[in-house]
Amino acid sequence: MRIAVLGVGLIGGSIGLAARRRSGAQVAGYDRDSEVCERALRIGAIDVAFADPRPALAAAEVVFVATPVGTLRETVGQALAEARPDCVVTDVGSTKRLLVSAGADPRFIGGHPLAGAESAGVENAREDLFEDAVWYLTPAGGNTTGVLYERLHRLLSSFGARPVAIDPDTHDRLMACVSHLPHVLANALVLQAAGELVAEDSERLPAVGPSFRDATRVAGANSAIWTDIYRANGDALVRQLDLLLEHLGEVRSLLAAGSPEAIGRWNERARGARESLLGAALAGGPVQELRVSVPNRPGVIAEIALALGREGVNISDMALAPSEDNRQGVVALWIAGERPAERALELVKGLGFPVARVSA
Amino acid sequence: MRIAVLGVGLIGGSIGLAARRRSGAQVAGYDRDSEVCERALRIGAIDVAFADPRPALAAAEVVFVATPVGTLRETVGQALAEARPDCVVTDVGSTKRLLVSAGADPRFIGGHPLAGAESAGVENAREDLFEDAVWYLTPAGGNTTGVLYERLHRLLSSFGARPVAIDPDTHDRLMACVSHLPHVLANALVLQAAGELVAEDSERLPAVGPSFRDATRVAGANSAIWTDIYRANGDALVRQLDLLLEHLGEVRSLLAAGSPEAIGRWNERARGARESLLGAALAGGPVQELRVSVPNRPGVIAEIALALGREGVNISDMALAPSEDNRQGVVALWIAGERPAERALELVKGLGFPVARVSA
Repeated sequence: MRIAVLGVGLIGGSIGLAARRRSGAQVAGYDRDSEVCERALRIGAIDVAFADPRPALAAAEVVFVATPVGTLRETVGQALAEARPDCVVTDVGSTKRLLVSAGADPRFIGGHPLAGAESAGVENAREDLFEDAVWYLTPAGGNTTGVLYERLHRLLSSFGARPVAIDPDTHDRLMACVSHLPHVLANALVLQAAGELVAEDSERLPAVGPSFRDATRVAGANSAIWTDIYRANGDALVRQLDLLLEHLGEVRSLLAAGSPEAIGRWNERARGARESLLGAALAGGPVQELRVSVPNRPGVIAEIALALGREGVNISDMALAPSEDNRQGVVALWIAGERPAERALELVKGLGFPVARVSA
Repeated sequence: MRIAVLGVGLIGGSIGLAARRRSGAQVAGYDRDSEVCERALRIGAIDVAFADPRPALAAAEVVFVATPVGTLRETVGQALAEARPDCVVTDVGSTKRLLVSAGADPRFIGGHPLAGAESAGVENAREDLFEDAVWYLTPAGGNTTGVLYERLHRLLSSFGARPVAIDPDTHDRLMACVSHLPHVLANALVLQAAGELVAEDSERLPAVGPSFRDATRVAGANSAIWTDIYRANGDALVRQLDLLLEHLGEVRSLLAAGSPEAIGRWNERARGARESLLGAALAGGPVQELRVSVPNRPGVIAEIALALGREGVNISDMALAPSEDNRQGVVALWIAGERPAERALELVKGLGFPVARVSA
């Protein structure tokens, strides 16, 4: 299969690596920056580099547009103009309506892999970046031909990704709620905490619990990428923010009134919502949380993951919280299902680490 | 040393384990629930269990009140009424103003360990629960005697904890910002996402990225504990929520206007705030000793501890040596790291006390 990748950064480079090594495809790369192309060639992300996208597009059966969000629309248009009639063109942008409305062309299928955009640049590209990652696809309703959709789906599956079809409106609304809004709140929280320190005439925050670290992990994420995302999905994000402001106004009244019953009911509703959202999202029953205290040395996480993997216990999610002096840390593990969680508890105990179930 | 622990749950039980195994203390336990006392005896968290707190209090040199937040005030009052004149009484509640205002008694020093309150019950108690955990102390300003503060500080250090003095108002305001507010936002986010799914006529959330998981990890935390916390710190939390609502209103305008420069600047400010808040982790390094000459009057140790706590300088250990005539004394302070020790030296000088570095 012949593939063209336009824009060879972290995502484009990882697509090239996965396509070459996992599906044996021939990958032609184009990037505005010729040095980036050379680096991509050197690490084996592409077979051949072009200084002009046209020859790459003329031969391709699948085109990935992986340029920055701000230039996606234009580049997708060019790709559709130059690509063959039986070529599928996709992109990797984090919002989808704009492009889909632009591309009434049945050869266009919008795409959005939920995979690590934190460390930019082709030098961070990895063949396994999309392993187990959901890869949203927004086929253009009745237009998209089965053969093109299937070709793209199978190619992404060969990368180890899990392609999931979704309509563009739903995609953008849900992303506004579950990704863009949390980023806005993380920004707001760190700015507020910094303001409180100024009020306190102190230079640093006293030790904070894990809730603050978790809630602000994505604060100030890559400005180039996130400015584009906030703008591309601005209308959906503002609607989600309005919903949140309305809800927080009610919570303010609730807290100011101080009724233990009403506060308790609200908190219980949140607990139920969290369980139904995150618990049900994974097979095997409600997700159980384990907390393991570990020394901060290389290999500890691998040791735990290997022990669980060997026994067929699947780690749905994990988070690492180092202590401030970096000598020690806590690993939170989420395991789907009561029995796998029990087994995980035994296995971790057997390795000699203090571990506790976090009661729901 | 003889210690009394009133309320032998996760925290009380872990205090008992740490005190017995790490400082060789004798621990008397009291709990309303006699079965809990038996379990605490069985796991070795206490040496002896009492069905009435009075005999435990009569003999104690240190009393930990670790009952639920709602009953803390009453239990602290009883402890102060029954304890000896040279006994230090502390608690483990997550808000501090209420108790400190109640306890004008110089024997009372409020406390708040930042350690895992998620998995309740003495059966989850662990000797190392406080390892590397910050343990806030709120000495009652001019009243707290140095000898009681030092006794408590050293005991907590023997648990592996890092005691940090802080004034109660600052404690409650900062906790409202960095802990209670993130919990409120986590609740609001899961409820909103669940609402979006209802709108979507779907039962489960499509795969979500890590930002949503991180931001909602604490949603619907233990209702019994959190209802009490939300109420006990309601006024400070409402003030923090108002600040947030004001900021989010500005962000809404920013997003609706869609200026890439303004959005980028806001995001960069958040990045800077996050780095200054969380990036500046403790420097660590070899422990330095400072010797401070102090007049022997109540409140001096608290004053020094507060000044260092405010600036995030951690006192690894302290020792108090009164002069023979008791009018004057020397406090030895051990500070980890060259720069924190330098800062401590300046701060103590700033308070007007003669201080010297003891060369290693």
